[in-house]
Amino acid sequence: MRIGMFESFVTQHWFNQAAKALWSDVATLQAWLDVEVALAQAQAAVGIVPVEAAERIAAQADAGLFDLGRLSRDIAFAQHPFVPVLHQFEALCGEPAAGFIHWGATTQNIFDTASALQMKRTHALLATHLDAAIEALCRLASEHSHTVQAGRTHGQHALPMTFGFKVAAWIDELDRDRERLQARQTSSFVASMGGAIGTYAGGGSLGRAVEVGMAARLGLQPAGMAMRSSFDRVNDYLGALGLLMGTAEKIAQDVVFMQRSEIGEVSEAFHFGKVGSSTMAQKRNPATALLLVSLARLLRARLPAMLAGMVRLDEGDSSATNLCDAMLPDIAILAVSVAETLARLAQGLVVHADAMRRNLDLSNGLIASEALMMRLAGAMGRHEAHQLLYDAAQRSQTEGIPYIDAIEQHPMRAGLALPDDWANALAPEHYTGSSAELVREVVERARGNAMR
Amino acid sequence: MRIGMFESFVTQHWFNQAAKALWSDVATLQAWLDVEVALAQAQAAVGIVPVEAAERIAAQADAGLFDLGRLSRDIAFAQHPFVPVLHQFEALCGEPAAGFIHWGATTQNIFDTASALQMKRTHALLATHLDAAIEALCRLASEHSHTVQAGRTHGQHALPMTFGFKVAAWIDELDRDRERLQARQTSSFVASMGGAIGTYAGGGSLGRAVEVGMAARLGLQPAGMAMRSSFDRVNDYLGALGLLMGTAEKIAQDVVFMQRSEIGEVSEAFHFGKVGSSTMAQKRNPATALLLVSLARLLRARLPAMLAGMVRLDEGDSSATNLCDAMLPDIAILAVSVAETLARLAQGLVVHADAMRRNLDLSNGLIASEALMMRLAGAMGRHEAHQLLYDAAQRSQTEGIPYIDAIEQHPMRAGLALPDDWANALAPEHYTGSSAELVREVVERARGNAMR
Amino acid sequence: MRIGMFESFVTQHWFNQAAKALWSDVATLQAWLDVEVALAQAQAAVGIVPVEAAERIAAQADAGLFDLGRLSRDIAFAQHPFVPVLHQFEALCGEPAAGFIHWGATTQNIFDTASALQMKRTHALLATHLDAAIEALCRLASEHSHTVQAGRTHGQHALPMTFGFKVAAWIDELDRDRERLQARQTSSFVASMGGAIGTYAGGGSLGRAVEVGMAARLGLQPAGMAMRSSFDRVNDYLGALGLLMGTAEKIAQDVVFMQRSEIGEVSEAFHFGKVGSSTMAQKRNPATALLLVSLARLLRARLPAMLAGMVRLDEGDSSATNLCDAMLPDIAILAVSVAETLARLAQGLVVHADAMRRNLDLSNGLIASEALMMRLAGAMGRHEAHQLLYDAAQRSQTEGIPYIDAIEQHPMRAGLALPDDWANALAPEHYTGSSAELVREVVERARGNAMR
Amino acid sequence: MRIGMFESFVTQHWFNQAAKALWSDVATLQAWLDVEVALAQAQAAVGIVPVEAAERIAAQADAGLFDLGRLSRDIAFAQHPFVPVLHQFEALCGEPAAGFIHWGATTQNIFDTASALQMKRTHALLATHLDAAIEALCRLASEHSHTVQAGRTHGQHALPMTFGFKVAAWIDELDRDRERLQARQTSSFVASMGGAIGTYAGGGSLGRAVEVGMAARLGLQPAGMAMRSSFDRVNDYLGALGLLMGTAEKIAQDVVFMQRSEIGEVSEAFHFGKVGSSTMAQKRNPATALLLVSLARLLRARLPAMLAGMVRLDEGDSSATNLCDAMLPDIAILAVSVAETLARLAQGLVVHADAMRRNLDLSNGLIASEALMMRLAGAMGRHEAHQLLYDAAQRSQTEGIPYIDAIEQHPMRAGLALPDDWANALAPEHYTGSSAELVREVVERARGNAMR
Repeated sequence: MRIGMFESFVTQHWFNQAAKALWSDVATLQAWLDVEVALAQAQAAVGIVPVEAAERIAAQADAGLFDLGRLSRDIAFAQHPFVPVLHQFEALCGEPAAGFIHWGATTQNIFDTASALQMKRTHALLATHLDAAIEALCRLASEHSHTVQAGRTHGQHALPMTFGFKVAAWIDELDRDRERLQARQTSSFVASMGGAIGTYAGGGSLGRAVEVGMAARLGLQPAGMAMRSSFDRVNDYLGALGLLMGTAEKIAQDVVFMQRSEIGEVSEAFHFGKVGSSTMAQKRNPATALLLVSLARLLRARLPAMLAGMVRLDEGDSSATNLCDAMLPDIAILAVSVAETLARLAQGLVVHADAMRRNLDLSNGLIASEALMMRLAGAMGRHEAHQLLYDAAQRSQTEGIPYIDAIEQHPMRAGLALPDDWANALAPEHYTGSSAELVREVVERARGNAMR
Repeated sequence: MRIGMFESFVTQHWFNQAAKALWSDVATLQAWLDVEVALAQAQAAVGIVPVEAAERIAAQADAGLFDLGRLSRDIAFAQHPFVPVLHQFEALCGEPAAGFIHWGATTQNIFDTASALQMKRTHALLATHLDAAIEALCRLASEHSHTVQAGRTHGQHALPMTFGFKVAAWIDELDRDRERLQARQTSSFVASMGGAIGTYAGGGSLGRAVEVGMAARLGLQPAGMAMRSSFDRVNDYLGALGLLMGTAEKIAQDVVFMQRSEIGEVSEAFHFGKVGSSTMAQKRNPATALLLVSLARLLRARLPAMLAGMVRLDEGDSSATNLCDAMLPDIAILAVSVAETLARLAQGLVVHADAMRRNLDLSNGLIASEALMMRLAGAMGRHEAHQLLYDAAQRSQTEGIPYIDAIEQHPMRAGLALPDDWANALAPEHYTGSSAELVREVVERARGNAMR
Repeated sequence: MRIGMFESFVTQHWFNQAAKALWSDVATLQAWLDVEVALAQAQAAVGIVPVEAAERIAAQADAGLFDLGRLSRDIAFAQHPFVPVLHQFEALCGEPAAGFIHWGATTQNIFDTASALQMKRTHALLATHLDAAIEALCRLASEHSHTVQAGRTHGQHALPMTFGFKVAAWIDELDRDRERLQARQTSSFVASMGGAIGTYAGGGSLGRAVEVGMAARLGLQPAGMAMRSSFDRVNDYLGALGLLMGTAEKIAQDVVFMQRSEIGEVSEAFHFGKVGSSTMAQKRNPATALLLVSLARLLRARLPAMLAGMVRLDEGDSSATNLCDAMLPDIAILAVSVAETLARLAQGLVVHADAMRRNLDLSNGLIASEALMMRLAGAMGRHEAHQLLYDAAQRSQTEGIPYIDAIEQHPMRAGLALPDDWANALAPEHYTGSSAELVREVVERARGNAMR
Repeated sequence: MRIGMFESFVTQHWFNQAAKALWSDVATLQAWLDVEVALAQAQAAVGIVPVEAAERIAAQADAGLFDLGRLSRDIAFAQHPFVPVLHQFEALCGEPAAGFIHWGATTQNIFDTASALQMKRTHALLATHLDAAIEALCRLASEHSHTVQAGRTHGQHALPMTFGFKVAAWIDELDRDRERLQARQTSSFVASMGGAIGTYAGGGSLGRAVEVGMAARLGLQPAGMAMRSSFDRVNDYLGALGLLMGTAEKIAQDVVFMQRSEIGEVSEAFHFGKVGSSTMAQKRNPATALLLVSLARLLRARLPAMLAGMVRLDEGDSSATNLCDAMLPDIAILAVSVAETLARLAQGLVVHADAMRRNLDLSNGLIASEALMMRLAGAMGRHEAHQLLYDAAQRSQTEGIPYIDAIEQHPMRAGLALPDDWANALAPEHYTGSSAELVREVVERARGNAMR
């Protein structure tokens, strides 16, 4: 019986395979064992447990040796998620090593540190796919740094720009997203061994040193103040993921629009055999972009509850840790899947420059209104120029006459001395501003920032 | 000093004026006094307080007599939102009536009952504007019950329909929204006089009867079990508002799309002097639809916190009531403003049937694919028909040849005996299904359901 | 490899087993097939498809005959969730029946109708557990209708009440939750067969009749206006679930507090072998209540995204349907699990009446302040009485002297003629108001409302 | 007519006065004018506008000179939030300067840059109050670094700690919150002058240089890539605010619990005249802590909509900017108010060390179970020790006998050689771990990090 979107036959292909493996039952159990090993070794190093015990613990710390079915039943009976794991682990190690497993630790220390390990690995996967997405977009931006397209605000043509510029704006934001994630992965995912309430009492005078040693073995920073009731660090990384989701959804929505039947400026990669509809044979849907929207929302939907999960009773509160521990794997898998889907979308995007030009020309020159404005303003003042152009543009739209004619016929036009070529400013390719220059700079910077 | 979106000179015109008045300081104070009067009268009717006292209380219950500035300062000092109100009210009534004000009541009883009163009045306003919006849409739907338009799924042309059908679908959902709100206004907004913790102890054996009497005077149902720690009833109405917000935003987004420069199928009412941009004189933005999206989200954003505000400590919890009392007026004003804005949008919408037809024809017949499918399926089976049409449609899109040619040239076409007029099925106006019939039914039902 | 909280060995026991089964891969596929069967039968009844074809379709509609592994791979390749299912189903039926499967339907019609079926079944499960929870609480309330306990507001003792009254307040809210769910299950979960965009074009003049026939066969109401872009109906039921989550979390938080080490007024069922901590052997945590909080939040966290999922492009939008289809099973399983967990909590709750009394007595009579107030107010006016008691109470708390002494020593006390037994009013058991009466009424009503 | 929580007589005192002033109508208008001045000056410096025009613009840029009432009406008519402002400003400046106002700018450039200015000022206010809160907590922590208190997990006594340690944990998290806010204020609030769609076309070849010059004059960083459709930067700061809200609410909830009638370990500052209830004269509610919870939630409730507001159509989308522009002032005022309220709570908190000790002793030694565990584990292995103590603790709780007796009577105890003083480990003051040491370190670090 398979349940849940990660395993359902309908939706399992939405999700990154490697990320799922990182958060499978077996991988989670292994991460717990890895933490127990690092703990025992750190304790052995300072003389709290015998070196032989630590070695034995390390040797047996293999999730493959556990009976997961029995674990599951014992956990349900004990209503405790970890004590049954310890029992099996003790049996695997035998005495005397068994007695030194989990020395001075509390369950949540193990869980929190293990999930930090898993999140670091998740981050590495995410980074790879995010780098790939950005690189694919860099190629698109560079190739189309001069491909003219309508810039749109509030759903209306606004000013001309280039398609490369649009993509550069996506990259600029993605690059900040990447930088934030990279910066926070270290501070957000730490090793905790403060014991039941964070006082390190279980480790006596060596408690804090053990945390430092354990952390070093796991490639993590020590928590320092290891409160189970404190969850701001993890949430700081999740906040950066939330920003990435916003960027990804924005890009996806732009693609969905640009692939609209009437717009046709881009289209997603298509392969023969991809089906749009069970009943409409002609459909070529932007399925990847629409999926990307869904995935980004599935992740973002989980963030408010995680943020609220910072509010924890006293020194520990399983109502919050249950929630956060159950949601974190979902978020991790979704994050990598979003990055992977974004990379796939970017890599397969086909650009239709002719459609961009055709759409640009639909407005009969209205889109160059600001270009005219900047010229006329020099001759007659900004305020007057806006008045003249506003009148002419509204008349053009209401009466259907060309914008330039409406301008020429406006009373305020009469007294103006304008250069002969002034109407040339209506050509959108002459009014893309710093589009190309920005493409160059953004692409160069983003390529320099690739995570690896 | 004006602060907050309801009063800012930039945004105050977004909001319904009457709804703001319902939730102004003075109106809120008056609602409190109205509840105190109903309480005193109900108590007088059963002999708990002297009739003369109740009469005096009623006579002085005028918010205009209060010193709001002093109230504000006293509330800050006492850190209690109501005791200073009582002090001024007592002074206004004088002894002996003063001693009978607020008899056996607790502050939250007054607040909850007063806000129920205000919400009922808010509902009446909302109903008026919602009725107007639906009626305007009914006119649009009826007028365009046969205006052919592309039906779209996943951003792509799917099947033909009529614009009236699209509008009827909006109406169908709005009609359900209206029905839910209408049904819940009574059960959601009740009179509470259970005292400090809901046991009616303050009223002795007559406590519950007093609640009934007070409720009747205010046109409300009595709470029956008057817990301050119970907030499901109000949230039930807010849930229905949330659904209305979803409908309103969906309609608004449809309008924004249909007004896109390239689409041009509808446009918002325009008046000379409406400005699209400080720099682009030509802009005609779907400003009303975009505002409607914003307003709907501003309301919806507040609902999760209200829902979480159901979780209250013990028998009373100001951390939750502070929150809910502060948010409810925002929600009320936003709700009416959404309905008013939707009505304005619907009333001013201009339909461009020619653009609808032009867009429909862009696909060179692909949109009628399903119509063909249903015919061919009769001749060759559904599965085979889908195969033939899928191949032809993909070839049409990849090679740019007409759909019908691609079909004729397909090997599977050869052996089929088809009626002579089969290609006629490509005409979209012949494949709008029950569009017109549904318009008729939905409009008739919705008109029958108008709230007043 | 098991992934996701429903299947993880750590958390799978949190969730109701029957609800999981209802939403497993196989059950979902079966629900799809059930809808296809009802469709074919409804079409056969009106002569659209041959009766023999419908019979063959019905005979082969067994999820157990499908190759789920291959389905999964084909879906990933086609990037379509249903066409591969049709291919296998066609192969199972063989010609000519194969050609009549899914006649005139679109994928989302099948998905929406199937999930309506699954939600109806989910509701039946939920109802059973909710009834059990309410019944267990009714027993508790009745048994403790006179067990005196401190009523608390803002974390402070407020007035006395009975424990039965507290439980009755929980029941009162749960009873409304139950009523809402019961009322909405029919209107929220409907059968949809409007075709690709809801015009019923695929079914020709019989399209709407087919929907009615199919709905009747499935025990559902027909959509009538079957828009894939409309999601208010399902969200209406989810809104009622949100209210239930609020109630459940409120109850759970009350239990967590009452089981606090210092309070000790209730405790959860305990069995030898239940473990509180891997390091603190003494711990008896309110594990069920804390889990209930988590489950309620896990569900509630998903609702805002579902509500936003009402906003759908045009006539269909997979970015929204992907999201909602992926979240609905989670919500369904969580809902039943919350009800089951609440029932378990209620059934096992142990009440410590002695601790309730002990806590009540901690305040040295302060809790009866209002009782005194109501008496003194009769003698000296409400306002004066509040002044006297406020002074005395603050002095009692600041100087640590008994409340009654502080009252007796207050200057305003001097002139008052009070009945001899006035101090008797300090006895909390005399000031529980209508506690017992309300228990009786609420329990009776709730028992009358049991869903089955 | 006053509307909205910031101005209501009931709630206006909840909010920081200076923050409200920063976001009043007049202050917002002034910020817009400040940006226009910096723009004109930057343009004058590179020769785009005459120096005299820039000087005239600067001289007239005084919000006090504007007619706000007329502005409000004109904005409603134009349905544009800024063109009417320009008209009044032009009239104030007169020609020729009027013609050079707003040169090449678009409205959203001005709004975004002005709100960046306002947010920077908001941050400075926030920093002051946050520093004060942390300093007050540092004093508390230091004073009580050895005051023994029960550490609690899942609502149950877990291990002993000191009250100073609890406060140090609050400080540790607040210190991280502060650091994040400090670090992000610069990158989150930038100056934007990219024109209508971000291409800097309006400024010609000098467009980007103008942004740099304007930014420098305003003490901001230039956007560089100035997309109106990009909102990640602001949201990054808001994410840090969200974390601060989590911390603040956690602290507040801890205080609410510790002030519970039965717990009494701390109490909020009380002044004679503060009223707890209109009907229960004795009430001393943790009103400040409960308000803090409400304020934190009011802010947090707004964040998901802001995050979703990152998803913007194309190059500009007023449906998102309307929303974000309307919510940002609320968030800013709430943020400062939370910090101020937290400081007030911390400064007034009264600690009852005797109650902490009394509560600690309630468990008859059970709280020292882990201390015993660590000792016994040395003698008999961790697993066996947990078994012995588990049995004894459950028996102690079930049968009500002292924990130590239950241990002595346990069969496994028999064969153990224990040091004479082993029972001494039951004294909680000997098992507070690194509590005091952590207090010292955290306080020292936090004081070093004060923002100013």
